[in-house]
Amino acid sequence: MKVSKKPERYLRYIIPPALFRAHRTKQILTANPIASLKRKDSEVIQTTVYDYDANNLHEHELKTVDDSFPFKGNGKVTWINLDGLRKQEVENVCDHYGIHHLVTEDILSVSQRPKMDEVDDILYCLLNMLYFNEKDGVVEQEQISIALGKDFVITFQEDPNKDVFNPIRDKLRMANSKLRQRGADYLCYTMLDLIVDNYFFVMEKLGEKTEILEEEVIRDSNKRALVHINQLRKELIVLKRNIAPVRDLVGGIIRSENELLDENTIKYFKDVHDHIIQAHDLSENYRDIVISMQDLYINNVNLRMNEVMKVMAIVTCLLAPPTVIGGIFGMNFDFIPTSGNPWGFYATVAVMLLIPAGMLMIFKRRGWF
Amino acid sequence: MKVSKKPERYLRYIIPPALFRAHRTKQILTANPIASLKRKDSEVIQTTVYDYDANNLHEHELKTVDDSFPFKGNGKVTWINLDGLRKQEVENVCDHYGIHHLVTEDILSVSQRPKMDEVDDILYCLLNMLYFNEKDGVVEQEQISIALGKDFVITFQEDPNKDVFNPIRDKLRMANSKLRQRGADYLCYTMLDLIVDNYFFVMEKLGEKTEILEEEVIRDSNKRALVHINQLRKELIVLKRNIAPVRDLVGGIIRSENELLDENTIKYFKDVHDHIIQAHDLSENYRDIVISMQDLYINNVNLRMNEVMKVMAIVTCLLAPPTVIGGIFGMNFDFIPTSGNPWGFYATVAVMLLIPAGMLMIFKRRGWF
Amino acid sequence: MKVSKKPERYLRYIIPPALFRAHRTKQILTANPIASLKRKDSEVIQTTVYDYDANNLHEHELKTVDDSFPFKGNGKVTWINLDGLRKQEVENVCDHYGIHHLVTEDILSVSQRPKMDEVDDILYCLLNMLYFNEKDGVVEQEQISIALGKDFVITFQEDPNKDVFNPIRDKLRMANSKLRQRGADYLCYTMLDLIVDNYFFVMEKLGEKTEILEEEVIRDSNKRALVHINQLRKELIVLKRNIAPVRDLVGGIIRSENELLDENTIKYFKDVHDHIIQAHDLSENYRDIVISMQDLYINNVNLRMNEVMKVMAIVTCLLAPPTVIGGIFGMNFDFIPTSGNPWGFYATVAVMLLIPAGMLMIFKRRGWF
Amino acid sequence: MKVSKKPERYLRYIIPPALFRAHRTKQILTANPIASLKRKDSEVIQTTVYDYDANNLHEHELKTVDDSFPFKGNGKVTWINLDGLRKQEVENVCDHYGIHHLVTEDILSVSQRPKMDEVDDILYCLLNMLYFNEKDGVVEQEQISIALGKDFVITFQEDPNKDVFNPIRDKLRMANSKLRQRGADYLCYTMLDLIVDNYFFVMEKLGEKTEILEEEVIRDSNKRALVHINQLRKELIVLKRNIAPVRDLVGGIIRSENELLDENTIKYFKDVHDHIIQAHDLSENYRDIVISMQDLYINNVNLRMNEVMKVMAIVTCLLAPPTVIGGIFGMNFDFIPTSGNPWGFYATVAVMLLIPAGMLMIFKRRGWF
Amino acid sequence: MKVSKKPERYLRYIIPPALFRAHRTKQILTANPIASLKRKDSEVIQTTVYDYDANNLHEHELKTVDDSFPFKGNGKVTWINLDGLRKQEVENVCDHYGIHHLVTEDILSVSQRPKMDEVDDILYCLLNMLYFNEKDGVVEQEQISIALGKDFVITFQEDPNKDVFNPIRDKLRMANSKLRQRGADYLCYTMLDLIVDNYFFVMEKLGEKTEILEEEVIRDSNKRALVHINQLRKELIVLKRNIAPVRDLVGGIIRSENELLDENTIKYFKDVHDHIIQAHDLSENYRDIVISMQDLYINNVNLRMNEVMKVMAIVTCLLAPPTVIGGIFGMNFDFIPTSGNPWGFYATVAVMLLIPAGMLMIFKRRGWF
Repeated sequence: MKVSKKPERYLRYIIPPALFRAHRTKQILTANPIASLKRKDSEVIQTTVYDYDANNLHEHELKTVDDSFPFKGNGKVTWINLDGLRKQEVENVCDHYGIHHLVTEDILSVSQRPKMDEVDDILYCLLNMLYFNEKDGVVEQEQISIALGKDFVITFQEDPNKDVFNPIRDKLRMANSKLRQRGADYLCYTMLDLIVDNYFFVMEKLGEKTEILEEEVIRDSNKRALVHINQLRKELIVLKRNIAPVRDLVGGIIRSENELLDENTIKYFKDVHDHIIQAHDLSENYRDIVISMQDLYINNVNLRMNEVMKVMAIVTCLLAPPTVIGGIFGMNFDFIPTSGNPWGFYATVAVMLLIPAGMLMIFKRRGWF
Repeated sequence: MKVSKKPERYLRYIIPPALFRAHRTKQILTANPIASLKRKDSEVIQTTVYDYDANNLHEHELKTVDDSFPFKGNGKVTWINLDGLRKQEVENVCDHYGIHHLVTEDILSVSQRPKMDEVDDILYCLLNMLYFNEKDGVVEQEQISIALGKDFVITFQEDPNKDVFNPIRDKLRMANSKLRQRGADYLCYTMLDLIVDNYFFVMEKLGEKTEILEEEVIRDSNKRALVHINQLRKELIVLKRNIAPVRDLVGGIIRSENELLDENTIKYFKDVHDHIIQAHDLSENYRDIVISMQDLYINNVNLRMNEVMKVMAIVTCLLAPPTVIGGIFGMNFDFIPTSGNPWGFYATVAVMLLIPAGMLMIFKRRGWF
Repeated sequence: MKVSKKPERYLRYIIPPALFRAHRTKQILTANPIASLKRKDSEVIQTTVYDYDANNLHEHELKTVDDSFPFKGNGKVTWINLDGLRKQEVENVCDHYGIHHLVTEDILSVSQRPKMDEVDDILYCLLNMLYFNEKDGVVEQEQISIALGKDFVITFQEDPNKDVFNPIRDKLRMANSKLRQRGADYLCYTMLDLIVDNYFFVMEKLGEKTEILEEEVIRDSNKRALVHINQLRKELIVLKRNIAPVRDLVGGIIRSENELLDENTIKYFKDVHDHIIQAHDLSENYRDIVISMQDLYINNVNLRMNEVMKVMAIVTCLLAPPTVIGGIFGMNFDFIPTSGNPWGFYATVAVMLLIPAGMLMIFKRRGWF
Repeated sequence: MKVSKKPERYLRYIIPPALFRAHRTKQILTANPIASLKRKDSEVIQTTVYDYDANNLHEHELKTVDDSFPFKGNGKVTWINLDGLRKQEVENVCDHYGIHHLVTEDILSVSQRPKMDEVDDILYCLLNMLYFNEKDGVVEQEQISIALGKDFVITFQEDPNKDVFNPIRDKLRMANSKLRQRGADYLCYTMLDLIVDNYFFVMEKLGEKTEILEEEVIRDSNKRALVHINQLRKELIVLKRNIAPVRDLVGGIIRSENELLDENTIKYFKDVHDHIIQAHDLSENYRDIVISMQDLYINNVNLRMNEVMKVMAIVTCLLAPPTVIGGIFGMNFDFIPTSGNPWGFYATVAVMLLIPAGMLMIFKRRGWF
Repeated sequence: MKVSKKPERYLRYIIPPALFRAHRTKQILTANPIASLKRKDSEVIQTTVYDYDANNLHEHELKTVDDSFPFKGNGKVTWINLDGLRKQEVENVCDHYGIHHLVTEDILSVSQRPKMDEVDDILYCLLNMLYFNEKDGVVEQEQISIALGKDFVITFQEDPNKDVFNPIRDKLRMANSKLRQRGADYLCYTMLDLIVDNYFFVMEKLGEKTEILEEEVIRDSNKRALVHINQLRKELIVLKRNIAPVRDLVGGIIRSENELLDENTIKYFKDVHDHIIQAHDLSENYRDIVISMQDLYINNVNLRMNEVMKVMAIVTCLLAPPTVIGGIFGMNFDFIPTSGNPWGFYATVAVMLLIPAGMLMIFKRRGWF
């Protein structure tokens, strides 16, 4: 029997279990910046040093982080990059470069909120690089710490397998690039700019996904679409909580009047600020669109139910007269009028069919369907 | 069979695919101000120069932008307008007129958020002219950059085929117009005023569309209306994200205390500020009306479903007694009371019809329908 | 057939087309303060002058506005009132009394947002008098401009057929009224006070309407109520956008430290400020009540649908056993058990009726209905 | 016939008309502080005077308010309390004690928003004492005016039958109470503290009512609960609009730097401020809980409808096969297979019952019910 | 009869009454900080003193609180901890250590809002330690008061059976811990840090619960899940009203410029501030997720209803033709066409079955199910 098919059972085929991302909820809700014990030392650490001024660039792949110590205060701009976090190495570098141990703790912390701090002579930024995992449709994040000091920038990246700063390396290698002409503060700006710009690319990907989802909602408002909308809302939470604090972060840098920042570089930070504000506005737009998509979904489901109800009401109405007539002439009375008439059967059948036909016509003219 | 018609299939005829503007979603959500590489050089550039003071007006259609260089610092007010953006030309003009290269980047950027900037001796505004595309029912935008310097205004328009400044040209040609009596700051004000005023015309068009849609929702809450409401919400997002930052932009000009702005002109900018605040309020009113229209829609659908349910409930109830009676006398027992009675059939049929008739009367008196 | 009645068709009788106020939407959404060209010169203008000090009051009905010129600077307080706006006359008066032409433009503008301005030595207020049109149930507005100068107040009213300042005239005619003892700033306060007080009367009318509507929603949640709720929400938009800016307006006057305002009069403006804040709070309360009324409406519709569904479910269940039994004994087998038994028919009928009766009892005990 | 019972009719028994508190809407929405003419002179006025310092306390029940005049400036703290408002008496007292006539108007006004004012040498507070009327389940308010001057406090209470200050009287009678040791400002604090504390008791009562309602919603989401939720939302509006302005009122006193307030007493006002902030937070919590209760209600109704739909769907499905089979063998063909077979009837009936039974089993295993 | 099963009755088995936590509502809504009389003296009080400097640590378990008096002003840092609140003891300690009696009242108050106060030379913090009661799934709170004075910290804990400061004791016992090297302000910081950190652990637990609930909602949107969502929303209210004021509390400490706080310690309080801001953000995320879960729930219920409606509509349609045909040939006319034909029965039955089969095929191809 066709009819007994349980709709839910169908859905089991259509929606692979992976779609039900309830586990994502826990992941999002258990951000705990304090549990620094949770940070596992990464197995691999790659330490690179770029030591440059307008004329020279020295590029080093270091074996141990301690090899980065001699670059301190050599008159050039020094960029030390640690790919992968290991407690011992991070503390060594920080101690040598005069980074306050509270900052060191932040560097090693897990799921910290983006923040800016000025401690001693260091301007410290912590923020997240975002990636869009196309396969799972989730926004992934990698914690990046940037410590700007006098003539040096030290960056700490969480994941040794990802490196976000390649475009900066390319620019450094160009002798005539503006990056080479300017100081450590400009390098720091370039990094923030790169990370913020990347938010737009992640949002572009989400935008594509949203559009596909909206098309699915318009076409067919099923459970799959429902689960996807819910999932999308969670990704928006991730997006927003990464973008909103970065706005304060960049605003804080602009207002800081820190000696490490050259007056000319502030203009560039203002540019990043414009971008992050736009990114924030855009994330609000996403929210609006997803909310409006969800409303569309609900309305669509309601509308379809309404249509089905109409069909049922019409069939129920059409069925009523023939059922009653059939019941009347099916009664076992000895004497039934016209039962002896050879055309009686045809006449009755005709009536049984004509009444619904007439009703249909009336319904149609009244625009019921 | 009429009844088996799938409602969705009907809708396919009614709603042309163009209505399903999911692609608009992507368009709205992928604003990316950074990807300046995306900006294609426009094929045509029209450069015009208006060089004027209270007594004289020189109007030039230039062949190359370089021809605009000699006008710098000639003691008159100079308005250089570039219709269409080509990287090389924009940079040339900006270099010659001392516009900071960060501003140049903004001029060439794509889908930038409206903003105001004071760099060196230039007051720079970026905002969007809005058009209402009647055919597709969407709000289109054209990026306009206005650079106000000492005795000159340079404007950059994205689309060489549209020109928004014709009313200004007309006023310039009138020797006794206030525009001719005053300086470059007043010209800049006139431009902002023109663009902001245009927002009201776009909103008027949207208002007409909203009213037509609301009438459709009241008359018949179908899928077409649903899709239109969703579409309208998206246009409101476009509207709002263009208007809200312009408020800050004009507010920023008023507070800037920039030497380029004459004390007397500030009054006029305050007037623009009043207008843009009203435009913003109005866009909020739009939102309220669209939300309330959507609520109306949902309630309408619910109400109609409720009415259909009532009809079904009534028919189901009315059908019950005749079905049972017909079933009773249709049983094949040898002995059925009154079956031999010649009036038995008529009496039973009468009962079968009178009971529903009586029920109908009771229902009616109780106000069921 | 009763049942085929289309519910919508019923509604056409119940709801007169005038209720479907979609045209109100356009009216609300197309406020455009710029299109001053839209302002048609009113056919009639009534110009009256009140020239008074504590001892004397001269009341003049002027033939032309130019007759008001001699009152300037005569040492007494002069109130010139123009009922009806004609471009030429307004400009004449403004020119003579030193009112900036930007203010003149505002006086002549249409659907301007309430605002306060200090230009040259004039304190200018633009706000709307509200009226509640009982017949259509809409809030109507009339634009009032008040220009306060040194020893004079000039008021401009949009509609020559309405005059809101009669209570002020009465007080002026009383020689010992505080109004007569004090200067032009107190006259200006009295006007604002009168207009703001009127907002409360409009809200009182709306409150009565809201209560009647709520009673209708509780009694019967039909389409008529739905359309009324939607309409009420629109009137609230009109109300709010008139009240909210007036708050800033009065606040602006208090903070202005304008020489035209006596220190003692500021206390009175603070009193108006308290009132307008309360009016604003009240308009928020309206919004809450209307939202909660709409929720009540939706829930009511849902609840009723739920009740109807229950009735249908019960009838469907009750019908099931007799239908099956009737079907069983209606089959044309040669041998049907008990068919020969004279009590068979009665027994079967009894079973057919007893089963539903028993079900009904069980349902009832379980509280289904 | 049981089934035809109109659900609404049932409700008429269950919900006494008193529950339909639409009239409360008008009451809430027509607050009009201006219409002071509405204030009817109360028939009874009780005037009491407490004249005290650390050593002595004189308690007087006055016959006329004029008897309170001699207490002015006698070096002790004087508290004059008027229970019941009569225009003449209020104006007499205010005139004698140097209270500005704008304040006098506020004292006599009706449904004024809570506010604080410093006029001349008087610190004036107007706020509402709240009572919870258990019988009608509504929050009632009584307007209290407190005028603090140099060494005196005058209080005006709206309702001569209620007196909120008894706890203060008890403390005054205790010679060693802090109240007796300190000045008029401390007396004023004690009054505010008493009134604010009372808000918590009203909220406690509302909390109990809310809990009972929530239990009713969980148990049975009927129209009665719906009307109660709506009613509760209105009481919350009353609550909030009394509490929110009091926050500003107390904040205003703390910031006022008024000479009437001793530095030591400010600490106590800060304590009241903490309480009123908590009261405000709590009123927000109420709103959240009522909103979440309403959601619970809607969802509950939906869920139940869903359950009923399932039952109907199952019965409809189960009924289908026997109906068809009964129809097949009920046809009057001369030759019907197995019709001659004596076991044919039994076999067919068995099939008619087994198919639904089998379907039921399948449904059950699939978890349909 | 299977069908008559009342769904609600089923639920009684599934949902144990304990789930219906309406009583929690009252508990949440009746927070009343004033009713200090409600505070019952705890039966047990444990008083411990830690008296330490960098070199020495003395740990005392006191018999009476009076034994803690001699430690005042002994040059070392003294931490007095009272586990359990008894009016007499609290007042004794506070009197001796110069704590203002308003603070003493706060210490003894019940359900006070978290707050910070500086009175005389004491910096006072009141906040709540949160615990997650796994059994009942509720967030429990214990009021903690911390009074920081010159060289001493006095802490008051509500519940003698719980002690939150054990990690601090462990650190104190380590001679080389930073806690031992620094002053009383650092001890105060450590306490706040511990309490704030604990909020994250409570949220982690709630996160787990939320995820389990979301999985239940996706799998089966029943009443149990509904009640759980409602319950979760209440816990979020508890969470938020504990976290939000702590943000102000810590912010107040940072801005206070109190002499009790060393410049170096402020850095640490800033760290706590970052954490509490993140905790607050996270609690907002919770709200978003719970709201989106509730939407998911509603949509899920709607979708399922929609599916059931479809099944019913299809069965109703399929049943229509055979019912009519069966009715036609079941009529008792003497002459029924083909009734004499031996294949008539088979042909008719075939038609009766083929029509629904054909309809099914059409429905399927059109994607109805």
